[in-house]
Amino acid sequence: MFEFKITHQDKNSKARTGIFKTPHGKIFTPVFMPVGTKATVKTLSSEDLGELNSEIILANTYHLYLRPGEKLIKKFGGLHKWMNWKKPILTDSGGFQVFSLALEKGNTKFKTSVKITEEGVHFKSHLDGKTHYLTPQKAIQIEHDLGADIIMAFDECSPANSSKKYFKEAMQRTHDWAIKCLKEHKKLSKKQKTKQALFGIVQGGMYKDLRIQSAKFMDNIDFEGNAIGGLSVGESKEKMLKMIEAVIPCLSEKKPRYLMGVGTPEDLFNAIEHGIDMFDCVHPTRMARHGSFFTNEGRFSIRNKKFKFDKNSLQKNCKCLACKSYSRSYIRHLIFEEEILGLRLITIHNLHFLLNLMSEIRTHIKKGDFKKFKTNFLKKCATTNGKK
Amino acid sequence: MFEFKITHQDKNSKARTGIFKTPHGKIFTPVFMPVGTKATVKTLSSEDLGELNSEIILANTYHLYLRPGEKLIKKFGGLHKWMNWKKPILTDSGGFQVFSLALEKGNTKFKTSVKITEEGVHFKSHLDGKTHYLTPQKAIQIEHDLGADIIMAFDECSPANSSKKYFKEAMQRTHDWAIKCLKEHKKLSKKQKTKQALFGIVQGGMYKDLRIQSAKFMDNIDFEGNAIGGLSVGESKEKMLKMIEAVIPCLSEKKPRYLMGVGTPEDLFNAIEHGIDMFDCVHPTRMARHGSFFTNEGRFSIRNKKFKFDKNSLQKNCKCLACKSYSRSYIRHLIFEEEILGLRLITIHNLHFLLNLMSEIRTHIKKGDFKKFKTNFLKKCATTNGKK
Repeated sequence: MFEFKITHQDKNSKARTGIFKTPHGKIFTPVFMPVGTKATVKTLSSEDLGELNSEIILANTYHLYLRPGEKLIKKFGGLHKWMNWKKPILTDSGGFQVFSLALEKGNTKFKTSVKITEEGVHFKSHLDGKTHYLTPQKAIQIEHDLGADIIMAFDECSPANSSKKYFKEAMQRTHDWAIKCLKEHKKLSKKQKTKQALFGIVQGGMYKDLRIQSAKFMDNIDFEGNAIGGLSVGESKEKMLKMIEAVIPCLSEKKPRYLMGVGTPEDLFNAIEHGIDMFDCVHPTRMARHGSFFTNEGRFSIRNKKFKFDKNSLQKNCKCLACKSYSRSYIRHLIFEEEILGLRLITIHNLHFLLNLMSEIRTHIKKGDFKKFKTNFLKKCATTNGKK
Repeated sequence: MFEFKITHQDKNSKARTGIFKTPHGKIFTPVFMPVGTKATVKTLSSEDLGELNSEIILANTYHLYLRPGEKLIKKFGGLHKWMNWKKPILTDSGGFQVFSLALEKGNTKFKTSVKITEEGVHFKSHLDGKTHYLTPQKAIQIEHDLGADIIMAFDECSPANSSKKYFKEAMQRTHDWAIKCLKEHKKLSKKQKTKQALFGIVQGGMYKDLRIQSAKFMDNIDFEGNAIGGLSVGESKEKMLKMIEAVIPCLSEKKPRYLMGVGTPEDLFNAIEHGIDMFDCVHPTRMARHGSFFTNEGRFSIRNKKFKFDKNSLQKNCKCLACKSYSRSYIRHLIFEEEILGLRLITIHNLHFLLNLMSEIRTHIKKGDFKKFKTNFLKKCATTNGKK
């Protein structure tokens, strides 16, 4: 059912194009996956996502487990039917949210709201403080109920200020859990005759040796793909790239490589150059809701006074709905008036911009001038690099 | 340029169908106009409104005058171009908002934030408390800058608890202002070669004699249409109907009749039966944002627990985007999670429901069984009648 085929390998870098076949269609890599945390990419309908030619979207196990509950979604025949999205879906395992939502309350509360054992994690819901217990097995059971095409193993994402000793322990737990996830996945797939691809997640913090150890471990397991977790969590871009560089040689070329939580143009270019195939990030949709939009000349805030009388579209010659129909002046008015249409229009534009960029990157990898394209794009666009 | 033609007159009531020609296309009456207060029907794009077959929308002079200012919109070639809506638009004069927004602060503050003279109204903006001065002439100037197809005369909408003496004075002011509006309108139309239809507004509170006096006065002026203002402001349905009954015989059959601020199915049926041709109301869009939706069996809140596992669409066999693609269960989830898509989907459904009802009403007037259709619809739908 699942098959990853590399269709082109860049000669000047590790960049590559590929096709990943899933039960709900092909994914052309490198691919960016818009994030639909609660089974909706914020402000957009499935029809909007279809018009954007989004090939795959992501949904969050943690949020859907808490509300409305995976059993409800299972009753509807899974996420695809429930949210009326016919193309591929990826669900994360909930691991990242369990830890990051606890962390958001401040590190002092970390130990009280998340209790980790070798078997799993007791945590308090960010919604109502109720205690829940997630194990690798339980996470996989939930993901099977949700029914995404690609599901993620349950991992521990440690706080950035943890010691190396702690990172190592957490990594080893993540490895143990990976084995448990795979076992549960195989059992459920056989029993329920479901077709889902399970990916492992490389951890190890900002420690090269741990990252290498983790990558070798994960690659050795019978997963359909490898993900890199715990990056883009506040470290410098140089450090992130160093970790990617360390990890990539340990990950099979034949499996798709997914860098979790990354989505600024500069980061995408750099990671693709190092051989990453898949990405997800709330960045383009979240920045849209703050009124920021991508252009070829960088990133701008529509709130800037200079756009008040601007008759141009967000980006000249852009083919998205927002740019075909509306001026910067009008969209600025919508954002100032807190009109929902403004949020939707910039979301559409930002996703179009990023998905279109990925499509262009694939084209240039095939053409053999990926690095030239990267240099030119980033030169024009000095401010697009994740500046907030 | 403007022409109102009655295409069918019901034999059993005053209901009628007609066509009103405007520079941006024909309007088939009776018509419901979705409200786009700040040049956007909340949550919807112009494309959405197009798909809903909305023939005309309304925008608010008061809000657009304050922000972004009518001069900005004029620079863009008017509202149509600014918001990318190619079909007819109606702007109110701002009168209702000047008075109602002041009233919202409580009656005691009414005199301090709105000061009325025979020449116009000094008021404080609800946005920043700055003082503004609107006169009949100024309101018409703004409406000419906005460039809607149909524009409204500047009127005074008195608080419900005013004395009859006050209502009479306010009505007389409204009459004086109507003359001034028409004069300014004719001057500007000639000077700027603009094609806009000006409607007068009948006032007079809940006093039959004042209403009759006001209707005769307005109908006698060279307006393209007559509106009835100051109704549906808290009075009983019986009282509202009595006022409509009193007014209608005084208004020319040859001019379109517009009942302002009315939009529940029961009110629409009753007013159409009495000869009203046009309506606007925030009701269907506002109730959508509160999670309430229209069905043939009445109005429901999607928050009701009974919809949690409901696989049905909001209304069986409904052709709107929300009903074609999504279940009540999914939309309920979106509303609970405060996801913007939920607000948009119910808005689409409610407007589709009401616009479709108007289309059916036109069909049944032509068929000659309007009253039978009305009785059957309202019998099925006992709870749709504006229950909040």
